[in-house]
Amino acid sequence: MENSKRTVTCGELRKGDVGKNVVLNGWVSRSRDLGGLVFIQLRDRYGITQVMVGDGASDELKKIASSLKSEYCIAVAGTVAARSEKDVNPDMATGEIEVEAKEIEIFTTSQELPFSIEEVRQKDGTVVLPNEDLRLKYRYLDLRREPMQKNIILRSQVTFATREYLTSKGFLEIETPTFIKSTPEGARDYLVPSRVHPGKFYSLPQSPQLYKQLLMVSGFDKYFQIARCYRDEDARGDRQPEFTQIDMEMSFTNREEVLTTTEGMMQYIFKKTLNYELPAKFDRISWDDAFDLYGSDKPDLRFELKMQDAAFMADLSDFNAFKAGAANAAKEIERHKRSGLKALVVKNVADKYSRKMIEALESVAKINHAKGLAWMKVDAEGKFEGGISKFFAGKESEICGKLGAEKNDLLLFVSDEKWQVACVALGAVRKQLGKDLNLYNPKDEFHFAWIIDFPYFAWNEDENHWETEHHMFTLPQKKYWDTLESDPGAVKGDLYDLVLNGYELASGSMRINDPALQQRIFKIVGYSEERAQKAFGFLVQAFKFGAPPHGGIAPGLDRLVMLMRHEESIHEVIAFPKNNLAASPMDECPSVVDQQQLDDLHLKCTEIEKE
Amino acid sequence: MENSKRTVTCGELRKGDVGKNVVLNGWVSRSRDLGGLVFIQLRDRYGITQVMVGDGASDELKKIASSLKSEYCIAVAGTVAARSEKDVNPDMATGEIEVEAKEIEIFTTSQELPFSIEEVRQKDGTVVLPNEDLRLKYRYLDLRREPMQKNIILRSQVTFATREYLTSKGFLEIETPTFIKSTPEGARDYLVPSRVHPGKFYSLPQSPQLYKQLLMVSGFDKYFQIARCYRDEDARGDRQPEFTQIDMEMSFTNREEVLTTTEGMMQYIFKKTLNYELPAKFDRISWDDAFDLYGSDKPDLRFELKMQDAAFMADLSDFNAFKAGAANAAKEIERHKRSGLKALVVKNVADKYSRKMIEALESVAKINHAKGLAWMKVDAEGKFEGGISKFFAGKESEICGKLGAEKNDLLLFVSDEKWQVACVALGAVRKQLGKDLNLYNPKDEFHFAWIIDFPYFAWNEDENHWETEHHMFTLPQKKYWDTLESDPGAVKGDLYDLVLNGYELASGSMRINDPALQQRIFKIVGYSEERAQKAFGFLVQAFKFGAPPHGGIAPGLDRLVMLMRHEESIHEVIAFPKNNLAASPMDECPSVVDQQQLDDLHLKCTEIEKE
Repeated sequence: MENSKRTVTCGELRKGDVGKNVVLNGWVSRSRDLGGLVFIQLRDRYGITQVMVGDGASDELKKIASSLKSEYCIAVAGTVAARSEKDVNPDMATGEIEVEAKEIEIFTTSQELPFSIEEVRQKDGTVVLPNEDLRLKYRYLDLRREPMQKNIILRSQVTFATREYLTSKGFLEIETPTFIKSTPEGARDYLVPSRVHPGKFYSLPQSPQLYKQLLMVSGFDKYFQIARCYRDEDARGDRQPEFTQIDMEMSFTNREEVLTTTEGMMQYIFKKTLNYELPAKFDRISWDDAFDLYGSDKPDLRFELKMQDAAFMADLSDFNAFKAGAANAAKEIERHKRSGLKALVVKNVADKYSRKMIEALESVAKINHAKGLAWMKVDAEGKFEGGISKFFAGKESEICGKLGAEKNDLLLFVSDEKWQVACVALGAVRKQLGKDLNLYNPKDEFHFAWIIDFPYFAWNEDENHWETEHHMFTLPQKKYWDTLESDPGAVKGDLYDLVLNGYELASGSMRINDPALQQRIFKIVGYSEERAQKAFGFLVQAFKFGAPPHGGIAPGLDRLVMLMRHEESIHEVIAFPKNNLAASPMDECPSVVDQQQLDDLHLKCTEIEKE
Repeated sequence: MENSKRTVTCGELRKGDVGKNVVLNGWVSRSRDLGGLVFIQLRDRYGITQVMVGDGASDELKKIASSLKSEYCIAVAGTVAARSEKDVNPDMATGEIEVEAKEIEIFTTSQELPFSIEEVRQKDGTVVLPNEDLRLKYRYLDLRREPMQKNIILRSQVTFATREYLTSKGFLEIETPTFIKSTPEGARDYLVPSRVHPGKFYSLPQSPQLYKQLLMVSGFDKYFQIARCYRDEDARGDRQPEFTQIDMEMSFTNREEVLTTTEGMMQYIFKKTLNYELPAKFDRISWDDAFDLYGSDKPDLRFELKMQDAAFMADLSDFNAFKAGAANAAKEIERHKRSGLKALVVKNVADKYSRKMIEALESVAKINHAKGLAWMKVDAEGKFEGGISKFFAGKESEICGKLGAEKNDLLLFVSDEKWQVACVALGAVRKQLGKDLNLYNPKDEFHFAWIIDFPYFAWNEDENHWETEHHMFTLPQKKYWDTLESDPGAVKGDLYDLVLNGYELASGSMRINDPALQQRIFKIVGYSEERAQKAFGFLVQAFKFGAPPHGGIAPGLDRLVMLMRHEESIHEVIAFPKNNLAASPMDECPSVVDQQQLDDLHLKCTEIEKE
């Protein structure tokens, strides 16, 4: 072919283009040879166009057309023709036309594929995927599949929309170093040995936290970066050695501004890329309420079903299991204004729920550390039946009145000395019910919420000291500044999490900018001056030169795109992810390196994995 | 102060704002206490606003105002007032107004600074900077300086403009992994030891080359990424362990499209961020011409001054040094159509150039491997004088005619058996003359050009084999496909470099997509199948499934921004660079890590640097 460069993509030809001479480039998605007549579905990332090699074609062209196999990469020169009415394919954007080939050039051929690029479905309609390691080994082919194309394209659109929004709001994107100092805090660092400085190591950042705070000290006042981050953690479903976050920080700001900026960004992203309208304001739920009502600090709010406090029930019977939940949590009740006796009223399902189904729910509660799941039903006469009903016979009107229970409702209870244990366990049951009963509001595909007012400190039982729940640069809420040392457990932080559909999407906080306050935090969590100096000395030092009030947040990009595409793993939205052993079957990394490379780095391996 | 959050920035108040109540946040740039009257220059990244604490202020406010020192971070609430005519500062955007403070809140104080944030000039006007390591140690303060603020802000604007342009052209930004397989090719890799796989290592990418080519195999057809790259090289002025490139790749394309896309991108970036119009087309100069005319494959084209071939002069005299240059390069003459006897005619400077000044030029030539720098002048009568003039007496008219020399011109010559040696040496003299005589065209602040038609192979004298000049995935130009093996030295690659003001800004090429052609290249450069398989097996494998024709380029972001700001080091355009020992004086990395971290990674250090 004289000029085989495409003049149009495989997604753009329409009826109005009939008669045009075009060149298409792409991959043979399917090819049917009807003897003298060959139909080729030619694919690129923009779509599929049908190419026809007709009766009138030269023998040479027919020969080439007949030789085409799946995933050959070819050029087709030809003329756009209208399909006859019966051949129009309404499911295809280009379904009204086909291209009558005049010439075909095979750029490159293809071996037999390890798996199909086209969707494969079982008889019941479920999509069958090749196994994960095969997909990762041939990732370049896996990425040709339509869902992966959509995922990667959406990811690109999301990052660009993010940058558009933040840039329009005066944010600067500033690159921070990925070779930083290793600090033995938080998760495990990935290290990079230095050749120039024997025995010394760089660390790859778990986040740009310290550097973005330094940029605030430098006066860049609105920073963001779509930043690669690294954590050497043991594999769990959703973990990758490297991941990406939308890292943001602002000076001369307050919580309200960080929250509304983030809301504006999400609204813009969802509107621009999915044409989905998010609400103008996201719910704000205190950490206490999140646990109390949903049993989680990342509640799935696509369905209502709130937990209730049932402490009043402890006095209504001799049922001992309820006493502990209601009574033995005096200090927690004081702090959280709630008891450890929690109830769920599941509307109008009592007749559907067998003992076996309830046992399945109980096992969910128990996995989540409940001692058990108490239950009873309200029968057709409004009487309690089953489970613990005998303890509460005759109290129907008081209990149903207070809990808002009616005929045919199922009542579920968890009681625990510890308020949070009860909440988490019954919250897990709540989540399970959401799935089992498909309680999701179809108009609420993406439900964002802010969780605010987190506890600042947590008591580390094993090591017998206070720790910070988030990180040590978080600002304690001002009303607790006088009682940081005297009652650490009561302190709330100026902390906020953004949750979406039951996932934590972002974590952020206002930061400390006063070196003296910072030192008090170090002291409460048992950091010696020396240790604090060694780990964070340069940040503490920087704060001595006029640090502005500042705060920020860091939505996870991988998870955001995963949720936007309703995928279940971030593997699906990363072009070349690692498997659950942090390895890549495609390029076989990590791998053994040359002795010379180790010598250069002044290193010896003490152990070598067997192949 | 009840609400100390700013309502305006320090750069935006104008005469029309007089009378408004505002809150400013920023740093005290300067503060003058005139006894009862305090003037504060308050700075943020948007500008400086003068704050005045007047006679009528409360004692408390006066006390606070008097206590302010440089770089205190404060909030000021006050009223915008017009300055009296004599106090108007036309050099300041906010110079027509000042803010009469009603309240001042000190967010944080500042220690004494290690160096001034304001510009410091010597008496002769040259700017004095603190020493590099001090700047890097207190980088967060160094970044408060106005030139650094401008550099970092421009960098952010450049990256956004890049993304806007490429996105508008249908490019997708796709993140490629930074944990990849180490291949002992090219520069030295940085390694990341694996904890999960003892004795194995990830490598950090020197560029996303293989992965962007895989994305082409996947069908993403227009890819870019502003990508962090890593090279463990010994420090030279312009090197950083981590650097950033605008990585691009396209499928179903050709050289023309890659070049015009890159030109369009640069035009857009320069227009949007500097309001500078680049020409619609950049010069295209063959590699042969670049050396022949400018002595470099990254010529500085902001001034004309071309070298000329002076082979004809060898026959005009007995001057032996010219014979070699003209004659002994027969093969090169055949290949490059040029000789090794090169001349420069420097217009109208003969009377200004002393013997000593010419000796300085000769030393430049010699450092660049010339045996010497021959010279003569054309005197006021049109006769040759000085240097080698005695060999060419009486030939003035022929020589001046052919070289275009006139009265008072200085003629400089380098002659060498090797064409390229002569070109490089005289080209270095050319560059020096450009600086010495300030030959730069003031209307040509940024002069881009393409260098094309590079030699594909280079002969490695030490190891006695052919190597590729660029990388092994580059496409040889089609007309050489039949003679790859029989005459590798003649092969030109489908390669292109983008140069700007004498710097190489980008390197790119069309790539091989035919596995058989790829194998031929591996063979010519002496790669065994096993070695090629080990290093690039997954790419070669991928190409067996229908690889599209593709090509790309990768402009260096650090260098681009450096040149746009007329800086001399990329350190000036990176927020937190490493020093020339690949270390950061601020956070003291690289550093010794805990034994536990090494144990986790199954590593032992064979040597530890002394502090």
